[in-house]
Amino acid sequence: MTTAVEKYATEGFGAANLPYASVTHDGRTFLATRLGDRVIDLGALADRVGGLDAEAAAAASTPNLDALLAGGPSVWRPLRTWLTATVTAADSADAVADAGVPVDEVGYAMPFTPADYVDYYASEDHATNIGKMFRPDEAALKPNWKHLPVGYHGRSGTVVISGTDIVRPKGLRPTADGIPDFGPSTRLDIEAEMGFVCSGAPTGTEVSVAEAPEYIFGAFLFNDWSARDIQNFEYVPLGPNLGKSFASSVGTWVVPLEALDAARVETPQREFPVASYLEDGPSAGGPWGLDIHLEVDLNGETVSRPEYRYMYWTAPQMLAHMTVNGGSLRPGDMFGSGTISGPEKNTRGSFIELSWGGKEPLVLADGTEMVFLQDGQNVTMRATAPGANGETVSFGECSGTILPARPTRDAQEA
Amino acid sequence: MTTAVEKYATEGFGAANLPYASVTHDGRTFLATRLGDRVIDLGALADRVGGLDAEAAAAASTPNLDALLAGGPSVWRPLRTWLTATVTAADSADAVADAGVPVDEVGYAMPFTPADYVDYYASEDHATNIGKMFRPDEAALKPNWKHLPVGYHGRSGTVVISGTDIVRPKGLRPTADGIPDFGPSTRLDIEAEMGFVCSGAPTGTEVSVAEAPEYIFGAFLFNDWSARDIQNFEYVPLGPNLGKSFASSVGTWVVPLEALDAARVETPQREFPVASYLEDGPSAGGPWGLDIHLEVDLNGETVSRPEYRYMYWTAPQMLAHMTVNGGSLRPGDMFGSGTISGPEKNTRGSFIELSWGGKEPLVLADGTEMVFLQDGQNVTMRATAPGANGETVSFGECSGTILPARPTRDAQEA
Repeated sequence: MTTAVEKYATEGFGAANLPYASVTHDGRTFLATRLGDRVIDLGALADRVGGLDAEAAAAASTPNLDALLAGGPSVWRPLRTWLTATVTAADSADAVADAGVPVDEVGYAMPFTPADYVDYYASEDHATNIGKMFRPDEAALKPNWKHLPVGYHGRSGTVVISGTDIVRPKGLRPTADGIPDFGPSTRLDIEAEMGFVCSGAPTGTEVSVAEAPEYIFGAFLFNDWSARDIQNFEYVPLGPNLGKSFASSVGTWVVPLEALDAARVETPQREFPVASYLEDGPSAGGPWGLDIHLEVDLNGETVSRPEYRYMYWTAPQMLAHMTVNGGSLRPGDMFGSGTISGPEKNTRGSFIELSWGGKEPLVLADGTEMVFLQDGQNVTMRATAPGANGETVSFGECSGTILPARPTRDAQEA
Repeated sequence: MTTAVEKYATEGFGAANLPYASVTHDGRTFLATRLGDRVIDLGALADRVGGLDAEAAAAASTPNLDALLAGGPSVWRPLRTWLTATVTAADSADAVADAGVPVDEVGYAMPFTPADYVDYYASEDHATNIGKMFRPDEAALKPNWKHLPVGYHGRSGTVVISGTDIVRPKGLRPTADGIPDFGPSTRLDIEAEMGFVCSGAPTGTEVSVAEAPEYIFGAFLFNDWSARDIQNFEYVPLGPNLGKSFASSVGTWVVPLEALDAARVETPQREFPVASYLEDGPSAGGPWGLDIHLEVDLNGETVSRPEYRYMYWTAPQMLAHMTVNGGSLRPGDMFGSGTISGPEKNTRGSFIELSWGGKEPLVLADGTEMVFLQDGQNVTMRATAPGANGETVSFGECSGTILPARPTRDAQEA
C-alpha cells in the first residue's frame, strides 16, 4: 500500500508541485501532471480513481488546459484538491502506475491556446540596460517606467511549445547610411521570462491585485526570442513588432499559482507610491514577489542565472493593469514578465545584456566568444522555486534550437 | 421572372458588392449578404437554390466568416461566383425574397473571430500630425517610417462589432509634475481606419505582395478608439497598450477584396525605393492603392471625409511585411490601416488631428466647440468605393456611442 508520492516523487516534482502539461505519447495528446519521472494522464487517472466532480473530470479528459481555464477557479481548485488527495492516498501508487508513462517517452504540445498575449518589461535592471544600449543619449528609464508596468501586445499565433526549432527571422536591419538592409537577423537573442496564463473575465471586470489568484491559473517558463537588429530599426514609435513576432516559446510545464505560495517574497523597494489599483502590499494579499531561480543554458553550458525576486512589478499588478481600462480577459490570455535581469552580470536574462551589445563578448567554457545566437545553438531554460513543506517546485524546461534563415524568395516569383 | 438584382439592388449594395455580415434576426445568427435593403441568409439561399459545392455550402450555413476564412480562396471564390450567378439569374427574385429579411429588422454580430490583430500607421499625414503633437521637439516622422509599414499588435479580445457601446476607459494620465493621475480619459478619440481580414498560412510562408489576394479575404470599416492621454503617458518605448486596448470597432459589412478591383489606384509617390519584398508595382499585381471614400459623423453631423487613396503603404505591403520574418497567419488574422488622414484638414481621421490637440476646436453646426469625445456622443463611420460596371460599393457603417466611465472600485474592496 505505497502512496504514489512515496513511489515516484523526486526533487522538483513532488506533491507540492503537481504541474500541468499537454503531453503527446503513442499518438495521443492528453492533459497530464507529473510526479518525479512519471507523467500521469489526468483523464485516465480520473476514470480509474473516481471522486472528481463532473465538470473537473471532463476538463481532466481533454488534451490541454483550455477547458480548465474556461471553467475558472471553481473547476481548477477542486481538480488540484482531488489530485493532491489522490497521489497521497495510501494505495495510490498502482493507480498512478497504470495512468502514467515515463517522462523520457513523452513529447509536449502547447499547454493552452493563447488568446491575447501581453509582454511586460518589469525588471528594472533589464529596462535600464536596454535603455542605455538602445538610447545612449537619454535617461535609461522613461518617465512612465516606475508608475506603471510598461507592456505591449505580442503575436499569439507564433507562441510555440518548448522544443520547437526557431528559424532565424529575416527583416530590415539598420545600416550606417540610414537605408535599411534586408536579410537574416545577425543579432538573434533570447529573453528569459516567466509567463502567466489566465481564465476569462467580462468587459469591465477591473481585476484587483487581491483578486488576481481568481484569474491567474499558473506560471511557466517563457522565452521571447528577439531579433535585436530588426527590433532596433522598427520599434519607434509603436513598439516591437517583427523583431519579436516570429516565435515565443512556452515551457513544458505550467505550475499552478497555488504551488508558488511558498515562493512569495517581498518586491524591491519602489521609488514612487503606486496608483491605488496597483497596490500589492498586505492589504492586497501581498507580498507578490516570487523567489523563482532561473537558469539559462547555451548548448548545455549555464550562461546566466536570473532571479525573479528582482522584478519591480508583480504578476497581480500586471493583470490589474491590463484590465483597469475596462478591457476583458479571455480564457488563455497570457502575459510575460519581460526579461528577468538582476544587478549582477551573471543574472542577466538576454545575450544583448550578457555581452553588452557585443562590446563585452561572453567567453564560453571552451574559450570561444559568444555575442548573439548562431545557427545550430540550443538554448534551454530551467527554473525552480521553493514549494510547500520544504519541497522544491520545478518548471521543467523551455528549449529551442536555432535553424538557419529560410532562403529569400525572388520577389517576382509569385 | 425578375432577377434579384433588378428587384432589390440599390446604390452601394448591387451585384458588384455582395458583402458579408454575421446577422442576427429573430433569435438566429447567420452569415448573410446584402442586395439593397434585403439581407439574405446565405445558408437558406444555398438550400433553396442549390448548385454550390459541399464545402462552400457548409461554410455558407454557419453564423459568420470563420469557416470561409479557414477554407481560404478555394472556398470563398466559388461561393462568390455562385452568389453572383444566383442573384443575376432570370428567376432569382423569389428565392432572394424567401431567403431574405429587411435590413432594418436585423442586428449584427462579429463577422469573424479575430485571431491576431496588427494595427499599422500607414498615412503619412496622420503619422506626421501625431509626431508633431506627441514629439514637438523632434522630426515628425521617425527614420524607419518610409522604409517599412510601422505597426504593432493590438488586443484581439476587445475587437467588437459596430453598435457596441464604448465605455470611457480609465488609466494613468500625465500631469505637469510627472506623477500620473488615475481616472477616466479626458482625451477620448477615434481613429478612422479600414481593416482587412485574412485566411491562414503556415509558418514561413512569406506572403508576397502579388500573392496577397490569396490571403486577404476582404475589407471593412474599423474604428480604433484611442484614449490619447493614457496613450501619451504609457507608449514609450514599447508602444500603445491600455490607451487602445479597451475597444476597437469593426464595421457591419466585410467587402470581398475582389469587389474592390475597380477601386484600385496608384499610391502616392514614395520618397525612397522600398525593399524588394515590399515592391507593389505592376510586377506585383499593382497598383494597390484603394479609392475608398470615408465619412465620419458625430451625432449625425459629418465632421471629416478621409480618403484612403492618400495611404503611403498598401494592404498587400502590410501583409507581406507581417509575414516576411517567417511568422504564420491564422484564419481571422486581421490588420488595420492606421488612421486615414489626408493633407486637407477636413480629411483628418481623428479628433486629435481635427482639433490639433485641442488648440483649434472643431466648431459644430450648432455653434458648439468640439475637441475630444463627450459621454453620450455617437460616432458613425461610412465608406464607399467604385465598384465594377460603374456601380458603387458600400461598406455599411461602423458606429459606437460613448458611455460614462464605470465608477472606480475601492482598491481595498476585494
